[in-house]
Amino acid sequence: MSQALRIGLAGLGTVGAAVFRLLSQKAEHVAVRAGRPVQVVGVCARDRGRDRGIDLSGVAWYDDPAALAAAEDVDCFVELMGGDGDPAHAAVRAALTAGKPVVTANKALLAAHGVDLAQLAEANGTTIGYEAAVAGGIPIIKTLREAVAGNKVSRVYGILNGTCNYILTRMEDEGLSFADCLAEAQRLGYAEADPTFDVEGHDSAHKLAILSALAFGTKIDTDSIHLEGISSITLEDLEAAEELGFRVKLLGVARRTDTGIEQRVTPTMVPKSSAMAGIHGVLNAVAVDGDEVGEIMLVGPGAGSTATASAVAGDIVDIARGGMHSSVFGIPATELIDYKPARMRAHEGGYYIRLAVYDRPGAFAAIAKRMAEQSISLESIMQKEKRDAQDTKARRAVLITHETTEIQVRKALEAIIDDGQIEDQPQMIRIEMP
Amino acid sequence: MSQALRIGLAGLGTVGAAVFRLLSQKAEHVAVRAGRPVQVVGVCARDRGRDRGIDLSGVAWYDDPAALAAAEDVDCFVELMGGDGDPAHAAVRAALTAGKPVVTANKALLAAHGVDLAQLAEANGTTIGYEAAVAGGIPIIKTLREAVAGNKVSRVYGILNGTCNYILTRMEDEGLSFADCLAEAQRLGYAEADPTFDVEGHDSAHKLAILSALAFGTKIDTDSIHLEGISSITLEDLEAAEELGFRVKLLGVARRTDTGIEQRVTPTMVPKSSAMAGIHGVLNAVAVDGDEVGEIMLVGPGAGSTATASAVAGDIVDIARGGMHSSVFGIPATELIDYKPARMRAHEGGYYIRLAVYDRPGAFAAIAKRMAEQSISLESIMQKEKRDAQDTKARRAVLITHETTEIQVRKALEAIIDDGQIEDQPQMIRIEMP
Repeated sequence: MSQALRIGLAGLGTVGAAVFRLLSQKAEHVAVRAGRPVQVVGVCARDRGRDRGIDLSGVAWYDDPAALAAAEDVDCFVELMGGDGDPAHAAVRAALTAGKPVVTANKALLAAHGVDLAQLAEANGTTIGYEAAVAGGIPIIKTLREAVAGNKVSRVYGILNGTCNYILTRMEDEGLSFADCLAEAQRLGYAEADPTFDVEGHDSAHKLAILSALAFGTKIDTDSIHLEGISSITLEDLEAAEELGFRVKLLGVARRTDTGIEQRVTPTMVPKSSAMAGIHGVLNAVAVDGDEVGEIMLVGPGAGSTATASAVAGDIVDIARGGMHSSVFGIPATELIDYKPARMRAHEGGYYIRLAVYDRPGAFAAIAKRMAEQSISLESIMQKEKRDAQDTKARRAVLITHETTEIQVRKALEAIIDDGQIEDQPQMIRIEMP
Repeated sequence: MSQALRIGLAGLGTVGAAVFRLLSQKAEHVAVRAGRPVQVVGVCARDRGRDRGIDLSGVAWYDDPAALAAAEDVDCFVELMGGDGDPAHAAVRAALTAGKPVVTANKALLAAHGVDLAQLAEANGTTIGYEAAVAGGIPIIKTLREAVAGNKVSRVYGILNGTCNYILTRMEDEGLSFADCLAEAQRLGYAEADPTFDVEGHDSAHKLAILSALAFGTKIDTDSIHLEGISSITLEDLEAAEELGFRVKLLGVARRTDTGIEQRVTPTMVPKSSAMAGIHGVLNAVAVDGDEVGEIMLVGPGAGSTATASAVAGDIVDIARGGMHSSVFGIPATELIDYKPARMRAHEGGYYIRLAVYDRPGAFAAIAKRMAEQSISLESIMQKEKRDAQDTKARRAVLITHETTEIQVRKALEAIIDDGQIEDQPQMIRIEMP
């Protein structure tokens, strides 16, 4: 058997400790698959004294991750510190500059500096493994980078945040409000004390930006992602969706259009009969549309220390075997083209629209007229008593449109608001078909 | 850019023609991902004169696939002829003996000779790509061989035959009989004129045998797979499943147990809430349970010329980049251990049992007693008028058991048959939980 692959492991939080444990407890299992032993020779973390339940004897301790990355006896640098700035950024650069492959779970770093880092890696004849950075244990990076290499990808989309999917599933199953489900998720440790990063879609956006670059060969552009969170989704929306044959998911969608790449993270309706609608709880799922393969979908745990460690280990084994010869983003980083965003107003698709319509003669006719003026045709209309509406005369109306454009929907809704026939702001949810 | 990877392509049926078209129409797309041009230099098929809609000018024609495989200007041999014997077998051996990587979609060949071929490949310092051999466009080989390398896999299971899933979905959706749906599938070209290979589970068994070797590091043993087809599944079973919260799928299941590896292809009930239950029509799906990652599932088209060509192209790009350094079955072929089959009688799980019980006092009590004697506890019991049963006094009874063993269920059913309380043979369907 060949020489050991010597690992420098920076970051010993729950994921880092899980990776360390996997590589030591399964040393033989990993070696037979890697074609050689894989050995952690140095580690680095903030607090040397903390008990992590792992035996660090015989492993060198570094206080500076960049020093670990550059250490002479380190062949491969594993970065599990997180954060889009230093020290993670500097340490990863140090490893790549020295021509050493990097394995990372750091989506924020890649979303911010992925293209520069890929160029640095490739200029130095090395690579970056980042399977763990998107959708945890799901092998979506390998799939996009390698498996569908013969395809032109037209769309990649999915459920990229388990916290949001958990909340939406609980609302649906138990008839609870968003606030109640969020509180429950926080109690169970599925959501952070400050949940903004998850529920407003920022976490999904980081992941989508990376998938988008892989799918379309474009530079990463997280800032231009159209972002809407799930805090505006009400139980009424979920119930109406159910009745109309849909489920609501927070989807990240990146799609090639005639005018550019559309990237959005928004609450989205998917048909109940679709495989995506069947993804419940904290699971993630990512679907890829390729011109040869059609649509494939990958489902699994999007987070968790061992699932993430599994993805890190897969990358390490690839590197140990001398594999992972693909470019970091599938094509050479110097050939990634500028990302040209499609405008959301040009978005094409069906829409769910919920309105609180005043209960008076002609109100609904006025609404229907405004839709017709924008050439929007309706697939279904559902009118009901408004829930919890003792203090209002408004009734709930839900419309599902046939395929139209966002600008038409926005114009129609503006006119409806101006007409004064509805009580609150309208709710609008895009529909995504498989 | 480096030298071209020169391909010898044997077999120009629908898949072979799709691969040829992909590599020529997308030459630049493939080259940028492969790091060098990929060029078909020689082809071989049975009928030279046939019009396949592809331009073969400038490509050498061979009548003998083994001669193509051994040709001096061929770097990589792509075998799309099919069949577990010669000429495919001889040609693949010729390529591997010459140290050339092989890409194949031939599940029958691998199920019969996979371990020998892997040993031959590895002894000659080369490899076999066979993503296309199992579940078409779904990257399950790459996932098992590379992505989950850090996991001990406890189970791999899934819907491996699109024809059967199409038939079961149609029966369920339209309330049609097995025979009617089979006839429809044949009319649409989803099923062969002789459907035995698909509907009796042989096709799924070939694929399962390959997945099993990858998952558990065991030698391929197709013959010991326990096989039951879907022709015995009635509309009554599907309706009862629906009422009890299940769906019926033809699953291939390979599972590590205390006494060996259980491999079976059988109609199986899965909970309606599971992602597997949401796989409709001709789609395939494969789930992998790893000790680190948990359960991941991959969904997509399991057949079709372009989906299969996509998988072939992925393997070719891996080879062109000098990747695919993994052993053919994840670990060196010389280290694959003998497959030790678990006995089906030791199978543990829940069971669905449908009985036609004579409508007379004490009949059901006698049945319940036989179950109790075998310590089988029942999760639910459903009794109904028997369908289409003008000429019988029997009533339909459906039982769902809690987890038990197959030997207990078999003994109970034998006793129930001996008691003479039921009209027909009992129907028994195993339940698989996610």
